[in-house]
Amino acid sequence: MVVPELHPAIVPLSMLLGTWTGSGHGEYPTIESFAFNETVTFAHVGKPFLAYGQRTTASDDGRPLHAETGYWRLPAPDRVEVVIAHPTGIVEVTEGGFDGRSFRLRSTLLGQTATAKDVTMVERDITVEADVLRYVLRMAAVGLPLTHHLSAELRRTA
Amino acid sequence: MVVPELHPAIVPLSMLLGTWTGSGHGEYPTIESFAFNETVTFAHVGKPFLAYGQRTTASDDGRPLHAETGYWRLPAPDRVEVVIAHPTGIVEVTEGGFDGRSFRLRSTLLGQTATAKDVTMVERDITVEADVLRYVLRMAAVGLPLTHHLSAELRRTA
Repeated sequence: MVVPELHPAIVPLSMLLGTWTGSGHGEYPTIESFAFNETVTFAHVGKPFLAYGQRTTASDDGRPLHAETGYWRLPAPDRVEVVIAHPTGIVEVTEGGFDGRSFRLRSTLLGQTATAKDVTMVERDITVEADVLRYVLRMAAVGLPLTHHLSAELRRTA
Repeated sequence: MVVPELHPAIVPLSMLLGTWTGSGHGEYPTIESFAFNETVTFAHVGKPFLAYGQRTTASDDGRPLHAETGYWRLPAPDRVEVVIAHPTGIVEVTEGGFDGRSFRLRSTLLGQTATAKDVTMVERDITVEADVLRYVLRMAAVGLPLTHHLSAELRRTA
């Protein structure tokens, strides 16, 4: 395997590369609160995007919970564009500012398949300090306003 | 690693599971025609969806071309819902009929980030016969009507 060089356009995102694992907590007015373990990966192939994947499992019995997959782009050094597919039948376009350490992202489009639940807004605040990644996710769904949903702290493990 | 049982809702999709590799050909009025090698994977975690990933590389020099990633759902035995993220900054919701062997899918939503190209329609015809997967993809983009874009023939290799 030849490891390609990182595309110059996404060098500022190099601090995301690798595998991150840790734990978090989720809540939403319509469901029981839950604790989860999470793995996030950011990889590249030498082109101007990062491939992104995420999986969570329940802290109590290890059953798979959420997953998501997509790509991150950096059209300007301070601006991120993210596209994500969710196994719940949802697609998400999320964009926002980047100051070299923190991302403040908000969905610009959420679409769903015919049978998926209605999610109308997602906000993701993500901060990376060396090998620690912390995030908070707020979501407006099933008729509710933007509400705290997830927070987690991950460490780079590969 | 415990291999979970396939969720009953997606048993009809079990013929997709595995890794598929092969080659194809692409054309579009706005670009030079190109030959590519392709790898497609379908996997599951015991929940009612398949995780889907695709990558192509140029046949001539092996450079990475397209990729996409997402999930397949089967809300009814004859109906498929697919959500896909593209590294070009595009999200796709594609749905359609399934007769146990062939998929006739058409996009119901295409969304893009602020800097992505405008794609307005995608049609995917996919047929699986034992260990051979063939597909044709038509696309309407950058102001052009629905036009043949890709065809490929893949074999299950894992």
